[in-house]
Amino acid sequence: MLHLYSDSSPNGFKASIALEELAIPYQLHHVRIDAGEHRHPAFLALNPHGRIPVLQDSETGVVLFESSAILLYLAEKTGRLLPTEPPARWEAIKWLQFQAASVEPLLGQRVHFELFATEAMPAAVARYRRLTEEAFGVLDDALANRPYFAGEDYSIADIAHFGWLHIAQIIAFDFQQYRHLSAWFARVAARPAVRKGITLPEPATGA
Amino acid sequence: MLHLYSDSSPNGFKASIALEELAIPYQLHHVRIDAGEHRHPAFLALNPHGRIPVLQDSETGVVLFESSAILLYLAEKTGRLLPTEPPARWEAIKWLQFQAASVEPLLGQRVHFELFATEAMPAAVARYRRLTEEAFGVLDDALANRPYFAGEDYSIADIAHFGWLHIAQIIAFDFQQYRHLSAWFARVAARPAVRKGITLPEPATGA
Repeated sequence: MLHLYSDSSPNGFKASIALEELAIPYQLHHVRIDAGEHRHPAFLALNPHGRIPVLQDSETGVVLFESSAILLYLAEKTGRLLPTEPPARWEAIKWLQFQAASVEPLLGQRVHFELFATEAMPAAVARYRRLTEEAFGVLDDALANRPYFAGEDYSIADIAHFGWLHIAQIIAFDFQQYRHLSAWFARVAARPAVRKGITLPEPATGA
Repeated sequence: MLHLYSDSSPNGFKASIALEELAIPYQLHHVRIDAGEHRHPAFLALNPHGRIPVLQDSETGVVLFESSAILLYLAEKTGRLLPTEPPARWEAIKWLQFQAASVEPLLGQRVHFELFATEAMPAAVARYRRLTEEAFGVLDDALANRPYFAGEDYSIADIAHFGWLHIAQIIAFDFQQYRHLSAWFARVAARPAVRKGITLPEPATGA
């Protein structure tokens, strides 16, 4: 049995969307970050970094944190959501990694300095606006001539980007001007597994 | 033939160290960032995000950016540097992703605010010191009872972490107090392919 430990957050939604898309049985455990449950010893034993999501596979004994590792694991376990042949396979992995290393961390810093920092730091706000807008532009160009990041097939790369852009939209980090990216967003948002995944374990605030 | 487009930088060293370790033929192309070559149209055609490293495989037609994607590709192409069986395989991928998403971006921001920001922002400096120290602590614990991130075998996870910690050391982001991490660092630094990889295309400033 698969166990997903998650909360309503962009990285958590990547895992819940993928599991719903694959329609395989799993047990969902709500780790309430606002109640500090990610700092409880039982959770830190699963992820010493204290972040959700965590996936545990009781069949193989694998325990994973880092949402990209979880997406790669689910794709390899099921043989789905990741093309097997190059170049599509490596397009999917490339855009998955781009999300994890070059989009998500910068969106996360933008969220911090725009919405949460107790001290106003206009230079930091401007820095992360500029870097995230640059990334949106790259994503927009990538989608100019294909429906999904890997090409014709929906993959874990789309799921990874959607998890964060769903939140970007809720908190008004506007990306409407990027029309290929916006069209892709609407296409992905219409999938039943995506609509379900973003409600697990609860809808994100404002969703 | 493999082509690596790179410059002296932590993410570039990941690719050069891996290629040297695998000892497979490749052609190295120096993209001089200080001369703005990463913004030349020929390079942007390979990576529209304008970052090194880029790997091009003329055999398969695959062109990859994002250092983690490159490491996964080289491991899959050669069947080396990544265990094939769980749980070791997923330990390697988990720590690779942790480097890419939860360590590297924060070290990058710490470099910016400590060394490059034109305006002093003590709260931002403190933020990234705290977050990177937290990550160092997680890495230290992970290495308490095993020589490498995946367990007994050296893997792309070690290469990914080394690339950045090599630079952390040069710029005096001290991690000596983390003794398991420091012992691992010395172990990896002693490998001939590592010593060679960090000189390609040129040694990093201060190395």
